[in-house]
Amino acid sequence: MSPMPPMNPTASFSDRLSAAIRDRKTPACVGLDPRRDALPATFAGTATLEPKELAATFARFCCEVIDVVAPLVPIVKPQLACFEGLGPHGMTALAEVISHAREKRLLVLADGKRGDIGSTAEAYADGWLAGPWAADALTVNPYLGLDAVDPFVKTAHERGAGIFILVKTSNPGSRDFQDLVSGDCTIFEHVAAGVEQLAHRTADGGRYGAVGAVVGATWPRQLDTLRATMPHAWILVPGFGKQGGRAADVRGAFHADGLGALVVSARDVIFAHSRPEMNAGLSDAQWQTAVERACRDMIERLAADTPAGKL
Amino acid sequence: MSPMPPMNPTASFSDRLSAAIRDRKTPACVGLDPRRDALPATFAGTATLEPKELAATFARFCCEVIDVVAPLVPIVKPQLACFEGLGPHGMTALAEVISHAREKRLLVLADGKRGDIGSTAEAYADGWLAGPWAADALTVNPYLGLDAVDPFVKTAHERGAGIFILVKTSNPGSRDFQDLVSGDCTIFEHVAAGVEQLAHRTADGGRYGAVGAVVGATWPRQLDTLRATMPHAWILVPGFGKQGGRAADVRGAFHADGLGALVVSARDVIFAHSRPEMNAGLSDAQWQTAVERACRDMIERLAADTPAGKL
Repeated sequence: MSPMPPMNPTASFSDRLSAAIRDRKTPACVGLDPRRDALPATFAGTATLEPKELAATFARFCCEVIDVVAPLVPIVKPQLACFEGLGPHGMTALAEVISHAREKRLLVLADGKRGDIGSTAEAYADGWLAGPWAADALTVNPYLGLDAVDPFVKTAHERGAGIFILVKTSNPGSRDFQDLVSGDCTIFEHVAAGVEQLAHRTADGGRYGAVGAVVGATWPRQLDTLRATMPHAWILVPGFGKQGGRAADVRGAFHADGLGALVVSARDVIFAHSRPEMNAGLSDAQWQTAVERACRDMIERLAADTPAGKL
Repeated sequence: MSPMPPMNPTASFSDRLSAAIRDRKTPACVGLDPRRDALPATFAGTATLEPKELAATFARFCCEVIDVVAPLVPIVKPQLACFEGLGPHGMTALAEVISHAREKRLLVLADGKRGDIGSTAEAYADGWLAGPWAADALTVNPYLGLDAVDPFVKTAHERGAGIFILVKTSNPGSRDFQDLVSGDCTIFEHVAAGVEQLAHRTADGGRYGAVGAVVGATWPRQLDTLRATMPHAWILVPGFGKQGGRAADVRGAFHADGLGALVVSARDVIFAHSRPEMNAGLSDAQWQTAVERACRDMIERLAADTPAGKL
């Protein structure tokens, strides 16, 4: 493996992400969503652990997943809720996981779906993208409007970080409000127009800006359209694997050169020890081998069925 | 002051909130939004503090604010971003603040505007409303749809907690998506219809459900309409004071008996030491007296100009 690009604060998130994707030759992103009841058998006894001990277990599990996937993928996406749900100890564990991922030269996308107004949004942006959490990117919820998104955009752009704004989420209930039609398009298309504007504004003449979009793998048709209407935006595509999306479904998120999309799989990879097609012949202690198999399987499927094969 | 109702997990959030409001005779909610550059002079030197020390300072400041306001108001609203922005140490400080507020028999509304899908939403809901954070209520973002809100509703209803769903936020940019018209009403009215349905469903035949709404004090006309369309929902009204809302502006959020609304002031109360009309004759060390004056001033203004005067 060639060395990863350095964490260069003068390089844009987009440039760092492109370089990392080209280096690993895949847009696969591993979601770090630790769950008490899904850990490998070697982490036994989690059912009765107190939050402090469970948080330490989550940190150990995620760091050991990172050790496996760091040579294979450009970026990991810790799910903040899984850590936050354990209280302050969970947040300490999260900081350890982020730190370990950076040591292993992975980019880190903090999946918090944060959103607030004015100086409150600044506090989130500073904390995640410029301050103690030291993530490379953060997911952001657009419901509060573009002035609420601005502090995230500003901090991301200034600090060589990125944000991914929720456009069309993978769940069936995304229809409730995101699909409502206003004027000649849906609410999520209105949001997408805002994303493209911000992406273009922060691209500084380059291909992609500091602002990307989240579009679920469960909506292949919308991915096609949104790729066209947001040419300057990276598209983060969750919902691959367990949530129902297949490689062919996410094809539309890519540009022809294989860039422009990040495809996330979480449980299918990190809990691969419980997938019969991944754990064949393995002992409980070999759960990391199942993770590696599942990660390579995802990478191969993306290469076979999407423009990522050209990377 | 009569004793506060016990933290009875068998009582609904709505019943506990109503009892606390009647006991204090005010719907005033103090927002705990600590900011490095706005603390009283007695917390000197914050400009150079590292996150760990600043977090400890935030905890001390908020706990001392709580000591002042606990006899006066029913509930406090910590702004999660202010703590989260400091990293894991900030979250530890937040847990101390919540714990101190509960010891002082205040209800605690965690302002996190969280939102995610499925088991991720469950992790947030469990952590904040049933688990280690032990808040009484949480603010929730509706962009992802009603199936994403459901885990919050379920946990809140089962655990005697509450949620407040963003409907129409106080910022000008709330017009961008919330005010778009689809069919015969705006997006925020579509969300409000969902809130009323959930509030009614969780009211168990009572007056209010476990699900409330957030509507900014900057939109008095919309508050009038939304009060009528969400009869079973508590309305949380931020934006009072610094953000421009006056007591007369929030009148519409109340039912005639003075219940149904919670009105938030944050900076105007907690940073009252910097308001000339509140700090007259006080030394730096007497900043808590300014907080008390500002809190009483808010309570009086609400009593004079809204149905809260009937409490």
